[in-house]
Amino acid sequence: MTLEAIRYRAGSLQILNQLLLPHQTVYDEIRSVQDAYEAIKSMKVRGAPAIAIVGCLSLAVELRAGAGGDDPVTFIRESLCHLTSARPTAVNMGRAARELMEFAENESMEKNSEQLRESVIAWIEDMLERDVNDNKKIGNYGAQHILSGVPRDSVTILTHCNTGSLATAGYGTALGVVRSLHSLGRLKRVYCTETRPYNQGSRLTAYEAVAEGIPATLITDSMAALTMREMDITAVVVGADRVVANGDTANKVGTYQLAIAAKHHGIPFYVAAPSTSCDLSLESGRDIIIEVRPPEELTSINGVPIAAPGIEVWNPAFDVTPHQLITGGIITELGVFLPSELQAALTGRLTAL
Amino acid sequence: MTLEAIRYRAGSLQILNQLLLPHQTVYDEIRSVQDAYEAIKSMKVRGAPAIAIVGCLSLAVELRAGAGGDDPVTFIRESLCHLTSARPTAVNMGRAARELMEFAENESMEKNSEQLRESVIAWIEDMLERDVNDNKKIGNYGAQHILSGVPRDSVTILTHCNTGSLATAGYGTALGVVRSLHSLGRLKRVYCTETRPYNQGSRLTAYEAVAEGIPATLITDSMAALTMREMDITAVVVGADRVVANGDTANKVGTYQLAIAAKHHGIPFYVAAPSTSCDLSLESGRDIIIEVRPPEELTSINGVPIAAPGIEVWNPAFDVTPHQLITGGIITELGVFLPSELQAALTGRLTAL
Repeated sequence: MTLEAIRYRAGSLQILNQLLLPHQTVYDEIRSVQDAYEAIKSMKVRGAPAIAIVGCLSLAVELRAGAGGDDPVTFIRESLCHLTSARPTAVNMGRAARELMEFAENESMEKNSEQLRESVIAWIEDMLERDVNDNKKIGNYGAQHILSGVPRDSVTILTHCNTGSLATAGYGTALGVVRSLHSLGRLKRVYCTETRPYNQGSRLTAYEAVAEGIPATLITDSMAALTMREMDITAVVVGADRVVANGDTANKVGTYQLAIAAKHHGIPFYVAAPSTSCDLSLESGRDIIIEVRPPEELTSINGVPIAAPGIEVWNPAFDVTPHQLITGGIITELGVFLPSELQAALTGRLTAL
Repeated sequence: MTLEAIRYRAGSLQILNQLLLPHQTVYDEIRSVQDAYEAIKSMKVRGAPAIAIVGCLSLAVELRAGAGGDDPVTFIRESLCHLTSARPTAVNMGRAARELMEFAENESMEKNSEQLRESVIAWIEDMLERDVNDNKKIGNYGAQHILSGVPRDSVTILTHCNTGSLATAGYGTALGVVRSLHSLGRLKRVYCTETRPYNQGSRLTAYEAVAEGIPATLITDSMAALTMREMDITAVVVGADRVVANGDTANKVGTYQLAIAAKHHGIPFYVAAPSTSCDLSLESGRDIIIEVRPPEELTSINGVPIAAPGIEVWNPAFDVTPHQLITGGIITELGVFLPSELQAALTGRLTAL
């Protein structure tokens, strides 16, 4: 069974409170846009796709209760603005807000308030379903591609950060590939890095693995190369914050180092990401600006200091892996592509492998 | 000024209590062999060279007060046995104990108790001085070698774990090289990895850097490759637990991954170690057994759980870097050698470069 991070039934929304993970499993009720705003801001829910889904679903919950009255378009616009401001760097919420607003404005020309509410709710529910289905496709395409290289064996995967149910609408991207391999009975084991400094691996990926009985082993980020040498790793699979036109990929810091180590060991390196994470407007990864986060993420854990006072810190949140190191391919809901094929594939000029 | 981790004057010994670092700077008085045993066992002092020095100095303190009476050899033997049992894996204490015991037994044939005590004390004091001097030679040889590649510039170094005053009798090995560069006015900056899971970098190396005003920046282990690409790293310099005949080097886990990343970026990779850390009895690093430590080092910090309960953990304490990746050289108190030159250099068939 796949861990449910977002529980939605028509008119009702609950989210797994990630602030309490991995020690407590508590679902919080989200009754309004304001509830969702607070959950996003306080990081009860995180992961760019998950933020967008929860934000939009909270709007659906309010609309189903009749919110917006005679002027639902204004209510929708104000709600989306508010939701987008909760974590401005999470691009998926911004994109969803633009698309949904455009849809709502078009619909409002020919529909009354009640009909508009219905069609916006349907759009949002469709978004949830599409996201989960896309992830499942990513999982299946990735699993098949990896297994095609090892016809009979079980495989051992190394992954980074959290790219599972807890970061998406459900199932996950890189961890979705791991889930697919496990459900096919072909996963021997997944090694997950703890992913300093925010420990998404040890807190979240480990939690998902334990919850679903996926054979998993936690290592420090520094042990990845040794694990590749000693543990017969079949493939490295990671997620992506953004994939640009030439296939260069921005992802959680540490990804670049994993890709170098994989190359050194001749292990295929895969990026798993929905096509919505691909940004063809940027030519190469050199155009991506590296976000630097506060030093406290390194110097303390849960508010307790762990480093020498006064030390300077550099804390880039992600890094860019050049396409040359993505030797396995980029796994999307449309298929698995080499970085050089990505542009053609996403613009419909190439079909799935 | 170099941080003093061990304060010794004839008849008096104090150690910087590393359990309280980096938050409190407290020196503990070591009045007896038993005090030293407890300090080693509880890890108030750590680092294989430092353990050996503190153990032997505590013996010198007791001998100066007349311990052993008419049979100092028996007292010395029992004391060394006890000290060696405090942390059996710290090989330097065992080696020092064997050498010192052999010396004491030889001396006892022609000297009375008082003379024997004097000569053993002198041997131990000489050991302290030799260790610090060897480290300073390592620092100077390493600095000159690195600077020879960049005649006029300041250099930026990346290092791993703690190899400074806190791990040795003083000055340090890899961090000794950094100290030498700094005292020559040629160090632009040192990047130190936090060194999961035991955080020797963020706790100890950062503490030493702050204490001495060495420009230093803390990064997570996962940021090393990105730092190499973005921060114009001149060289990577690390210590060693053991260097074997072909130059393969066992060191703190993560070293292997750094060496791969350095190679990828064309950055020289150096190992700094006294000749006493070289073990020519082993042919290659394949003969070194990897010590696996308890999972709790990854799953909790200061007793507070940080990972999902129930997750499996692999926690190897060190890894082996193949000599092919040690592109800068091995820095010893005898000079800087290529891995292929090490055996000849240590057996006197090759002189310093």
